[in-house]
Amino acid sequence: MGRFITFEGGEGGGKSTQTALLAEALRARGLEVVTTREPGGSPGAEAIRALLVSGDTGRWDGVTEALLHFAARRDHLRATVWPALERGAWVISDRFADSTLAYQGFGHGLDPELIGTLYRLAVGRFAPDLTLILDLPVEDGLRRAGHRGGGEDRYERMGLDFHQRLRQGFLGIAAAQPRRCAVIDAAQPVAAVHRAVLETVEARLEPPA
Amino acid sequence: MGRFITFEGGEGGGKSTQTALLAEALRARGLEVVTTREPGGSPGAEAIRALLVSGDTGRWDGVTEALLHFAARRDHLRATVWPALERGAWVISDRFADSTLAYQGFGHGLDPELIGTLYRLAVGRFAPDLTLILDLPVEDGLRRAGHRGGGEDRYERMGLDFHQRLRQGFLGIAAAQPRRCAVIDAAQPVAAVHRAVLETVEARLEPPA
Repeated sequence: MGRFITFEGGEGGGKSTQTALLAEALRARGLEVVTTREPGGSPGAEAIRALLVSGDTGRWDGVTEALLHFAARRDHLRATVWPALERGAWVISDRFADSTLAYQGFGHGLDPELIGTLYRLAVGRFAPDLTLILDLPVEDGLRRAGHRGGGEDRYERMGLDFHQRLRQGFLGIAAAQPRRCAVIDAAQPVAAVHRAVLETVEARLEPPA
Repeated sequence: MGRFITFEGGEGGGKSTQTALLAEALRARGLEVVTTREPGGSPGAEAIRALLVSGDTGRWDGVTEALLHFAARRDHLRATVWPALERGAWVISDRFADSTLAYQGFGHGLDPELIGTLYRLAVGRFAPDLTLILDLPVEDGLRRAGHRGGGEDRYERMGLDFHQRLRQGFLGIAAAQPRRCAVIDAAQPVAAVHRAVLETVEARLEPPA
């Protein structure tokens, strides 16, 4: 059985960069590594992602959005994550269920109990072995994310208040589940963030040297 | 507040035909009538429908499919059904939540309790005022549905066993909730089915004469 590592946090924290760097470091140690992302990460989930990340900010209400996220998540787990873990690969996902709790729960005010119920229905007792929360001030994150371009910016357009609640949500999740989660200071330069990520992975999951 | 009527049943029972005929009869009495369908019935729900009705029969597992159906259903209710009922319209839907229970629950063996939980999350305490279950032998229904053509035949290709469980599922729902549901013999000619539908609507919902 492999290990499942997730990167979480607001916009512009460098999740996809850190996913790629961690994958490279673990591959150098001879591990099979699968990198993936949410929403998406499998053909079915990517089709659902297309519904979620484009269009008006008010296109879906919080409940509908949570249902779509958990539908995509289950497809992603069944098609990509669980088969990879079964064959011993380490799987690194750019976002997972904490993003739904932070965005739909803390951001949109959806009842966290509802999200917990959906988690149990769609995911069961499965959870990441380690969740790395890339934390930085909201303004810095949005400024970095703004440089990215592309049409997938529905969340980035949601206002500063929303993103502040999001950041507090992620920090709250980390505080509530310290064994699974670690908060990484993502305001540092990329290489320093990567070193902090790698040290945490080594301390918590003990990969082969 | 208007009334919400749903047509349910397996393939080829004439739900869309009876929806149109009932709408015509109620409009002739001066009512505003909105006809709609599931999955779909609103722009967002139609986009989700496109994911559900095409592709391989094994594209989604039962849980994922149920999540997608309830996401589409909530969008349909918020965008189409609830606003129409608010302004006093009568809404007739070709399929609603009983189809999820019959197809994913009785057909695919998904835990009915899970479907009940999703119903409470996505729909709340709202329910149809009247559900008309168009019942006919499975072979007859599939033969009629086969004449339709088009690419939306993922369910029709699922085998006779599946459709037998489906029929028993709908009859079981009707037996469990007799105040909301009525079973109509859909093996009769279209005009006779329509008469039976109209008699039931008159007896149960007392529309203006």
